[in-house]
Amino acid sequence: MTGPLDWIRDAAAAREDAGLVRRLSVTKSADVVDLAGNDYLGLRHHPAVVAGAVAAAETYGTGAGASRLVTGTLDIHDELEAALVALTGAPSALVLSSGYTANLAALTTLADAGTLVVSDEHAHASLIDGCRLSRAAVSVARHNDLEHVAELLSRRDTPRAVVVAESIYSVLGDAAPVEDLVALTEEAGALLVLDEAHALGVVGPGGAGLVARAGLYDAEHVVVTCTLSKSLAAQGGLVLAHPDVREHLVNTARPFIYDTGLAPASAGAALAAIGVLRDHPELAARLHANATRLAETLGVDAPEGAVMSVEMAGPHETVEAVEQARAQGVRIGAFRPPSTPDGSSRLRLTAHADHTAHDLDRACAVLAGLLPARV
Amino acid sequence: MTGPLDWIRDAAAAREDAGLVRRLSVTKSADVVDLAGNDYLGLRHHPAVVAGAVAAAETYGTGAGASRLVTGTLDIHDELEAALVALTGAPSALVLSSGYTANLAALTTLADAGTLVVSDEHAHASLIDGCRLSRAAVSVARHNDLEHVAELLSRRDTPRAVVVAESIYSVLGDAAPVEDLVALTEEAGALLVLDEAHALGVVGPGGAGLVARAGLYDAEHVVVTCTLSKSLAAQGGLVLAHPDVREHLVNTARPFIYDTGLAPASAGAALAAIGVLRDHPELAARLHANATRLAETLGVDAPEGAVMSVEMAGPHETVEAVEQARAQGVRIGAFRPPSTPDGSSRLRLTAHADHTAHDLDRACAVLAGLLPARV
Ligand SMILES: Cc1ncc(COP(=O)(O)O)c(C=O)c1O
Ligand SMILES: Cc1ncc(COP(=O)(O)O)c(C=O)c1O
Repeated sequence: MTGPLDWIRDAAAAREDAGLVRRLSVTKSADVVDLAGNDYLGLRHHPAVVAGAVAAAETYGTGAGASRLVTGTLDIHDELEAALVALTGAPSALVLSSGYTANLAALTTLADAGTLVVSDEHAHASLIDGCRLSRAAVSVARHNDLEHVAELLSRRDTPRAVVVAESIYSVLGDAAPVEDLVALTEEAGALLVLDEAHALGVVGPGGAGLVARAGLYDAEHVVVTCTLSKSLAAQGGLVLAHPDVREHLVNTARPFIYDTGLAPASAGAALAAIGVLRDHPELAARLHANATRLAETLGVDAPEGAVMSVEMAGPHETVEAVEQARAQGVRIGAFRPPSTPDGSSRLRLTAHADHTAHDLDRACAVLAGLLPARV
Repeated sequence: MTGPLDWIRDAAAAREDAGLVRRLSVTKSADVVDLAGNDYLGLRHHPAVVAGAVAAAETYGTGAGASRLVTGTLDIHDELEAALVALTGAPSALVLSSGYTANLAALTTLADAGTLVVSDEHAHASLIDGCRLSRAAVSVARHNDLEHVAELLSRRDTPRAVVVAESIYSVLGDAAPVEDLVALTEEAGALLVLDEAHALGVVGPGGAGLVARAGLYDAEHVVVTCTLSKSLAAQGGLVLAHPDVREHLVNTARPFIYDTGLAPASAGAALAAIGVLRDHPELAARLHANATRLAETLGVDAPEGAVMSVEMAGPHETVEAVEQARAQGVRIGAFRPPSTPDGSSRLRLTAHADHTAHDLDRACAVLAGLLPARV
């Protein structure tokens, strides 16, 4: 007789055979150099950021208690949205419970069955899920290939179109040609949904991101999505866009309407992190110096932001490199098929502002030992 | 010339004309009796729960900093999962960043194009979005109609089937026939995904929910989803299921794998709330007494949990009642088409353990004045 979990067990056995099992293990930070996480500015333990979280929990309670549309909008949400507008120069901000739900909210409300979505092949899972959920027809464009985007847009037979990209890519770490994308989409009468998760806090004036750096927040067809969980050291997501887009999301985005508001402590932490960012521009500078040093050791170009990608000979070499580094106290990330759209296997490394010269010495010594397995 | 936001502005104007605009407004708790939020046990401001959030932020930092699978699993996540298992008797627990993403994670990994999903017509938006994203064929069953569920299942031509329900419904507040659903799905070789968001903390032994009350956690085809954002006063989601299902989610659920781990403060708050729940069974008892009193005033049956639903004559009467109550310091919720699957318009009211006799007197006086607009 077959049981209802049989196919799950078969899939588990197949993963085991293929050496592709993912396991959760607790990270203890003591004596580990973290080149895998996304706390780029090292603010998770910053006293002012912790104090922001603590004060918010004490003042507003430990949860929002309801959807933002019912009784779950608190002063701290308003303050955080105002601070995000001040940081980026965006025309308005809407805070959601995660970067994942922010992308679902943006795409399910800006695209529908009457929309062609042209999405970069390296778009994040949350952008892809947003596209799927929107019921739009999706064409996948070659990575950062504007001509391909233009060609796919020109073939459209739908009343509307949306182009989806990241401003700094989460795995490859390279930047999108933001100005050109904004111009191309404007010309095509398309919206541009641009995920700045790995750019906010890291690049642009005061960490405002690439759309701010290009001065393009007045283009009303540009919709930026982002997370509070990386440089801003908290949890949560956001959409930065024209107020009419914000109003559209508030009224129609199911992952916003039917979701509990962001926890006050996370909102308070992000708000405090924005303050630290404003007062300490040296943090981003230090991050870039650390990234440059790591990139030299890895033999790759210095990244635009914090993320570096090293192509490896294969999935086994990749896992082996991660394990070897971990045994020596250095945490790095790995991406293998099917997580990589091009079938490549890659190490993913991230630079952090709070790594000391000593941390970097240690890390670079370990990384140098992994390089023989590079492509 | 048409601009890319024209259709958004047209939709906004149509909402305005129909009187269906949703607006965000800050909730100040002073002098308001909240019968709209989901902080059922009143734990958001409980000193022990706030202390749990504060200690977690101080110990683990303000964010998880990465996906749970990279460096984002912290001791506090393990502790919380163990506490959830101890509270419910479930065979394993997986904590995610929200109840919304927990439902997306469960459904996108348990259902696929080879699955028939039979979903209750009153299933929550996050369950519906999970079904859509799974690419499964979805049949909608009449609310709590087991014969209809059985009939739809019997017509299946797919290798697998999943039945989707809530144990206590978020809008109607009624309970599902949990034992019968478990038996029916077992017989049909289907999985049962049951959302206990409005049951946890409220019903069952020690607030363990309806599956625990029925002693059914050893049925390996039962997958419970839940949120940390209601009775547990925090933010986050969870899946309670057989360890093989947990392993399946860890390995394949995109809204888990590609999402930052739950913020430590939220995990700490939920963990502390579970402790309060365990030490204070009188909280749930007080909640039920308050619910009974409110239900009497409203002329509806005492609810199984905290949620009460009152059908109103129409959408305008519903909005009018909410406004009238608000003007008198009582917050209640409203559901109107298209949020109600049956086209009805309803007030949604929730009982809370922390309402005093004085709060209830005030609330009941106001509610009595709204009743003429009932169906
Ligand atoms: C590009 C990108 N977008 C969105 C997300 C999701 O953000 P969150 O973790 O806040 O859900 C991530 C990673 O987590 C990301 O890398
Ligand atoms: C039944 C049900 N499931 C899931 C959710 C989503 O949970 P969360 O707010 O934690 O995302 C909600 C409400 O928010 C709900 O009512």
